[in-house]
Order: sequence, then C-alpha cells, then structure tokens
Amino acid sequence: MRLATSLVLVLACGLGSIALADDLSLPARTLPAPASEDISPQMQAIIAAKPNPNANPLWKTGEEARATADAAAVAAKKRIPGLLERLNVTMTAQTMDGVRVHIITPNMLPAANRNRVLMHVHGGCYVLSPGEAGTIEAILMAGIGRYKVISVDYRMPPEAYFPAALDDAVTVYRAISKTTNPKRIAVFGTSAGGALTLETMLKLKELKLPMPGAIGVGTPMADATKTGDSFYTNEGVDNVLLSRDGFCDAATKVYAQGHDLRDPLISPIYGDMHGFPPAILTTGTRDLLLSNTVRTHRKLRRAGVEADLNVYEGQSHAQYGRNDDIPETREAFGEIAAFFAKHLAK
Amino acid sequence: MRLATSLVLVLACGLGSIALADDLSLPARTLPAPASEDISPQMQAIIAAKPNPNANPLWKTGEEARATADAAAVAAKKRIPGLLERLNVTMTAQTMDGVRVHIITPNMLPAANRNRVLMHVHGGCYVLSPGEAGTIEAILMAGIGRYKVISVDYRMPPEAYFPAALDDAVTVYRAISKTTNPKRIAVFGTSAGGALTLETMLKLKELKLPMPGAIGVGTPMADATKTGDSFYTNEGVDNVLLSRDGFCDAATKVYAQGHDLRDPLISPIYGDMHGFPPAILTTGTRDLLLSNTVRTHRKLRRAGVEADLNVYEGQSHAQYGRNDDIPETREAFGEIAAFFAKHLAK
Repeated sequence: MRLATSLVLVLACGLGSIALADDLSLPARTLPAPASEDISPQMQAIIAAKPNPNANPLWKTGEEARATADAAAVAAKKRIPGLLERLNVTMTAQTMDGVRVHIITPNMLPAANRNRVLMHVHGGCYVLSPGEAGTIEAILMAGIGRYKVISVDYRMPPEAYFPAALDDAVTVYRAISKTTNPKRIAVFGTSAGGALTLETMLKLKELKLPMPGAIGVGTPMADATKTGDSFYTNEGVDNVLLSRDGFCDAATKVYAQGHDLRDPLISPIYGDMHGFPPAILTTGTRDLLLSNTVRTHRKLRRAGVEADLNVYEGQSHAQYGRNDDIPETREAFGEIAAFFAKHLAK
Repeated sequence: MRLATSLVLVLACGLGSIALADDLSLPARTLPAPASEDISPQMQAIIAAKPNPNANPLWKTGEEARATADAAAVAAKKRIPGLLERLNVTMTAQTMDGVRVHIITPNMLPAANRNRVLMHVHGGCYVLSPGEAGTIEAILMAGIGRYKVISVDYRMPPEAYFPAALDDAVTVYRAISKTTNPKRIAVFGTSAGGALTLETMLKLKELKLPMPGAIGVGTPMADATKTGDSFYTNEGVDNVLLSRDGFCDAATKVYAQGHDLRDPLISPIYGDMHGFPPAILTTGTRDLLLSNTVRTHRKLRRAGVEADLNVYEGQSHAQYGRNDDIPETREAFGEIAAFFAKHLAK
C-alpha cells in the first residue's frame, strides 16, 4: 500500500523522489465557528453560515448551468440599485468591439484616478453571474476604491465555451488600451475572474501586447485539475464551495467542453508568469482555493514578480466580496485599491 | 430543484440573508500528501512525514521541559559544524550586557550589509533549543542572506521564567543599537521567536526606544490563548505541532508561570502594533499557527504597517526552516533577506 502510494506520487509529479507518504487519517471532528475579536460580527455570521447544502448541481451542459445562473441572477440584480446608490457610483451598459460590458463610474472621481481604468472580470465558475449579476465586485471596487471600472460581461455557456470568456476579456483589454496607456490599466477579478485575470496576462504575452500596470487576483481558480492541498484540507470546511467535486468543478468542465484542463489558459498555474505586472492576491484560511492562491503567489514571486498576499482569518471562498457594509469587504477592496494606486501610472 | 439550487447559489454568492450554524461537524477523512510539482521532493518528504511522535510531553515544570530540551539539543548541536561549513559562515559565543549570544558572520560579507546587523530570537516554545541548538535559523539566515546575525541565547525555564526571554532580547537589542543605527538592525525569529520579535517591538515602544528598520516574523505564537481558526482546522493536519493542546501549549504555560496568557507580552496579537517597522511574515497552509500568522499580518496592515505575507503550500509549522539543502528553505530565507535589504539602511 505504501509502495503503491509512493509510486503514484512519483508518476503524478514526474519527480525522481521516492519520498514516502502514507495518507493522513483524520478522525471525525467538530469545528467551532471562528470568533476572535478581529473578525467583524457581519463577517462572523457569513463565516458561520450553514454549509451550502446544495453545492452539488453537477451540470453536464451549458443549458443546465445557464438555467441556474439566470435564476440566481434575478436576485442579484435586485441588489444593484441599492449598491450603486450607497457607493455613489453610476453604471451604464454598452459594448466594446462587440463585447458586452458595464461601465461603473464613481460620481466623485479623484484626480489621481481620472486617467486610470480598471478592467473587471467577474467570477462564477465560468457559467454564473451573467449580465448585471456579474457587476457586484466591480461596483464594490468602483465605490470603495473610487476608480472607473469596466466589467466584462463575457460570453458563457451555452452561448459560447472555452476560450470565449478569455477572448472577450482580451478584446475589451485591447479596446481599453486604445485610449488608455496600459500602465494606467489594472485587471482584476475573483475565482473564475481571478483565473481569467491570469489567463488574460498569459494571452497578452502570447500576443506580444503590453501588460497592464497591475493585477488583482482574488482566490483564483488557478488549477482546474484539483491539485492543491486545500482542495483536501478545506473540504467541507469551506462553506461556499464545499468540495473539489462540487458545482464549480462541474461548471469548469462545462466551460472547457472537453479541452485539456491542464491548459494554462484554463489552469494558469501551469503558465509562465515571468513578466507579469505587480499582483495582489486575496484569500481566506478556510478557502477551498487557499492553496490555489498561495501557489499562484509563490509562482509569481519565483518569476520575480512583485506580488502581495492577503489571507483573511476564517473566510471561505470569496467571502471578502460579499457586501459593502462589511468591514472586511472594505478592508480587502481597500487593500487592492491601494495596491493599484501604488502601481498604476497617473 | 432548480429553485432550491438557485437559492443556495444566492446564499453562496452573498446575495441573501445568512442562517447561523452551530459548530461544523466534519466526518473522518483521509488527506493525501500534497504532491504538486511546485513542492520540492525534499520538502514533500518533510510535509508527508509521519506525525511528530513527541508532540505531547505535557511538561508541568521548567525542569521537566529542560531535560527534554537538553536531550534534543545534543542532536541539534551535531548539525552545526556542517551547516557552518556549507553556508560559509563563522560562529562565536560571547555575552552582551550579561546575555549569552552567538554571533554568526558570513566569511564573505557583501558591502551593502557591512553595517547591518540582524538580531535573531530562536523558537522552541520558550523552553526548547538552548545554547547552540538555538542558532540553526540564525546560521541559515547568515549564510543564505549574507548578513551578520546575533542570536540571543535567552534564559529559559528553569533558569528563568516570563519575562526573562523578552528581557534578554531587549537587552541585546539595546546593546546592538549602541554601535549600530537601529535603521540598520532587523529582528527576526520563528514560532516563539516570532512572538518574541513582536513582544520586543511592544517593549521598545513602552520604553520609547527606537524601532529597528525591519522585522521578520515567522509563524509567530502570537496568541497563546488558543484563539485562531487554524488551531481547529489544522488540528492533526500539522504534523509538527499536531494540537493546540500539545507540547507547545504546555511549554508556554511553564514559561508564563501563572502570568495572564492574554498579556500582549505573551500574546502579542493583543498589543498595539501602530508604529511597528516593516514586517515580513511566513507560514504554511498546514501550519497550526496559520491563523496566528495571518491575524498578525492583518493587525499590522490595519495599523498601517507595511507587511508582506508568504504562505507556503502544504507546509506545517516552521517547516521552511529545516535545512540548507531544501529549495523552499532557500526561498523563504531569500525572501526575508531581500525584504531586509529593501528596508534596512546601509
């Protein structure tokens, strides 16, 4: 058994080592909700929420995924007017070179940000949050960071499959960079949006296009092959994603449509990150993608890229981006906004 | 079914209200050893090692702890000559204002570091690694970072109890700063040494003494009250510390000798970190003190302190500091050395 395990490790990793690992057996246990005084009551409630009991819609088709996405988008859309008002920003919809976008502009744009533009790529496992539902993170950033944000409403299944989302992101980036110096552009997103941010950088390199001035990589789906220790250590601990075999994995396969999941344009951890712009990464200790995030951070650092990492106590996947009235949301977006302010040209 | 799923997604995406949970029950499970190709074979072997068989000596007295410490120090001491030779550094023992120290000097000291001094405060739960056994991390830093390092061989139980370790660190810092501008000094350490680094900063503030130019805070025992989510999530996952109720907790109580464990000079997370120097923090995803580390990072950032965080994939407590032939050790010490180079005056 031990021999079999080590053989598997050697084969799986292509390493010459015969470093031996028995699997680690853990008994059943009970985790108390994190309750240190450095977690706000609002965030404590989110962290302690019941585990998502139906996080396993194992969609097999784009149509199935889209039906769920459309239903969820109805509720999300209802939150938008209140968010826009509280954060004092204005949103308009348009297309840029044929790609749907939402443009969110602070009503009070600071002078320092007048010539800067952030491009936002939303999350949702490549299948969720169509239309306005995908703009919440963009609105939070526009309002908290006081930047103009262009949020890419990229095509999703069943309208289109890999690499449509990436293509749309690149198209919008090219369109923005026609009028804005790339050094004044940042690209950011969370989860699939974090992965798409990284994938966009890989694609820009391939196309020999100039990099933006900075990127914000929120708990990225950087490895769609389920490699990464927290896929195991945080299984059932993360109350959002729950399992590496849950809806996000199913959705990624729907999007990939049979394409190799190890392709760096789906699993950017396997791409060459030399020459990437300064990056800020965000995750939480209970995040199923904690390892994806820290592995990406290390890969960037090993490639000589300036990269900041923020890990929030107790938070599961992407919980820092929930709502504008949560101190940790203000904190996380404030950190990212400050990082962009430091690295973007004026 | 579709409606139920969309409701769940609404909750998962933060679009609705939150149902508070009781404690989270996790079933028994098996963790495979992390095996991604971005972990070196040497580190994989360390990560996959069987759980520390000596993780539960629940010492009640300084004498008991010291007997274990002395026994362990014999083996540690044997490693020193080889380490010194391979890392091309020289070590001497002396006292500074009555406190025992080891001074480790690179045989080839770069010009930029000629006037810089790092003060090292070793780990070992306030009771382990007496004498030369406490210098391994200092030697690694002197050799990899090519700095002159002064390692404080602070008094430990039963020779002395709280706050003797801290007092000795402060004494040596004052002695160093008589001849070296504090802007050219960094203080660093791991585990208890990370906590002592933070405690020293709190004490310097209290004494109105100048701060050093930077600090290196390795997976600090920043909260001795067992507060912090990873005390629970990583219980039994961390193969070094194993449990919040293990030897390190027992040792801290021996050191505290009845003193309030919530005192910021024992649990520095409860101290005021405004005015701290730039800090670099290091931990691993399996570290029992992952939460201690990220909570400290956030506390520093909230206090406006420049603070970098590095989290290494799969590593349990302090595994980055094991040996000089491990790529991740070179990486971690290289990161810390570069951070010091950036922040220390020449």
